[in-house]
Amino acid sequence: MLSVGIDIGGTDTKAGVVDEAGLVVGRLTAPSPSLSARAAEDSIVGLVEQLSEAWPVGAVGVGAAGWVDRDLASVRFSPHLAWRDEPLAARLADRLPLPVLVDNDANAAAWAEYSFGAGAGARILVLITLGTGIGGALVVEGKVFRGAFGLAGEWGHTAVVPQGHWCPCGNRGCWEQYASANALLREARQLVATGSPQAAALAALNESGGLTGAAVTALARQGDQASAELIGEMGTWLGLGLANVAAGLDPDVFVVGGGLSRAGGLLLDPARAAYARSLTGRGFRPLADIRPARLGNDAGLVGAADLARQAALASA
Amino acid sequence: MLSVGIDIGGTDTKAGVVDEAGLVVGRLTAPSPSLSARAAEDSIVGLVEQLSEAWPVGAVGVGAAGWVDRDLASVRFSPHLAWRDEPLAARLADRLPLPVLVDNDANAAAWAEYSFGAGAGARILVLITLGTGIGGALVVEGKVFRGAFGLAGEWGHTAVVPQGHWCPCGNRGCWEQYASANALLREARQLVATGSPQAAALAALNESGGLTGAAVTALARQGDQASAELIGEMGTWLGLGLANVAAGLDPDVFVVGGGLSRAGGLLLDPARAAYARSLTGRGFRPLADIRPARLGNDAGLVGAADLARQAALASA
Repeated sequence: MLSVGIDIGGTDTKAGVVDEAGLVVGRLTAPSPSLSARAAEDSIVGLVEQLSEAWPVGAVGVGAAGWVDRDLASVRFSPHLAWRDEPLAARLADRLPLPVLVDNDANAAAWAEYSFGAGAGARILVLITLGTGIGGALVVEGKVFRGAFGLAGEWGHTAVVPQGHWCPCGNRGCWEQYASANALLREARQLVATGSPQAAALAALNESGGLTGAAVTALARQGDQASAELIGEMGTWLGLGLANVAAGLDPDVFVVGGGLSRAGGLLLDPARAAYARSLTGRGFRPLADIRPARLGNDAGLVGAADLARQAALASA
Repeated sequence: MLSVGIDIGGTDTKAGVVDEAGLVVGRLTAPSPSLSARAAEDSIVGLVEQLSEAWPVGAVGVGAAGWVDRDLASVRFSPHLAWRDEPLAARLADRLPLPVLVDNDANAAAWAEYSFGAGAGARILVLITLGTGIGGALVVEGKVFRGAFGLAGEWGHTAVVPQGHWCPCGNRGCWEQYASANALLREARQLVATGSPQAAALAALNESGGLTGAAVTALARQGDQASAELIGEMGTWLGLGLANVAAGLDPDVFVVGGGLSRAGGLLLDPARAAYARSLTGRGFRPLADIRPARLGNDAGLVGAADLARQAALASA
């Protein structure tokens, strides 16, 4: 059975037709309407209708950047979209002749990496995505772990520095303030502000208005020492945070995705070193694998499509 | 079926005959021999033999303060005992005519609280025990969650303060250095050392050589303001740490046990306040219940006995 996966991000909504092997056989993209829940719903319905005309699809899975009830029907809250306690699955099912499932985008991505990507074979898989913040999700023995209220996986908001940097979640010292594209950008700006000659390349970027997390990552890959050091600092905080996750959950595989993961070894080598140095009981236990994600930007839509396909088959 | 539960602590080994309702119908205690693995094994065998003479028991469960493989057979490492990669279940089964199961003591206690105590009905139960350090365990939808390598639940060793207090695990800033009987004792000593008149009652305890975590807890319950404030500080750190656990795991119930939990509301009220103030997404999600443990010191042996009984029935 083919199914449609939808990944609603802060800026774009991506839709794809996905086969049973996790391959995207067709795709469409539309801007995410952030002003009204109804507009977002219309956009999803339009994308699904277009794709259904060209392919015989049997289910629709939506991965939303927000908190989804564990009944996989309602979006409690979305930071970037206008949804508050929105019964999205029911509304879409009213307008589409297909079964609809809604899940958190990180859950969908973790499922995709587990089923078709870097997490294959993991007993306990933790996905960490480093973007604006830190996204997270957990697959335990072949099942997405959603928590008692559907809100598991928010390790990005564990407090790692008392009275540390403010976080948009309203707390201070959250892990994502120390290991994310936004954290990288903040640190790069502060380094530029010192006027240090080390930061010449970053200062030039800043002058031209092009200082972004992606640009710093690109500079680091081109060999800029200061940028590489900033990424290394993110990597160290990443490893420390993974050790915190491992203390509680003891996974065998971490998969690291998101924009910042494009830094590759510049990020993951310091992360692995910090993890090995910080893991409680190190020396008496195996180290979990820390692997780069494999499905890139498609993980969310592939996972949402596959979860919807499996739910449709199970209820058929 | 009756089964024997054994709880091997750092000082005492407690053994009990437990029925299917979790009641301890008979019990024995012996000092824990810490010098050799063989002596600990002899002690367990002796306790089981004595209890088997008086009751018709069908299985033996051992809860060990240490890291137990997820096959529930070997103790990888025990901080207080002489076990290193010790195939304890096989050694005991060689010497006893009964099926033997070995599990981590916190796992056993969490199972007992879930089955017969404060955690009844929880979808996702997190047990936190505040003693020398912080013990932890997790029951997910009626099953103990052990992690990929059997080492889950060590939230006490998540780093919450960069460059914070040293921990016996070899790291700095671990949560258990801020919320445990040992942390309470350290803070009480430091307060006494200031010579503050606030600390008069604590100073008197110290003079007489009686300054322990339990004594500070007792003073606080008798109304000593300084002691109550110290316990309140532990409670605040407890709540902050529970919010960290909830960010990742989203449980519906926390059960708090261990010696320090005898402080009751002096500990748990500030913990609940700090939890409600620190939980990420507060206002958009339900708050988990934070409940005092109900089975006290018996939780470990009751849980070990019940896990062993269930394993014996399942393999029969």
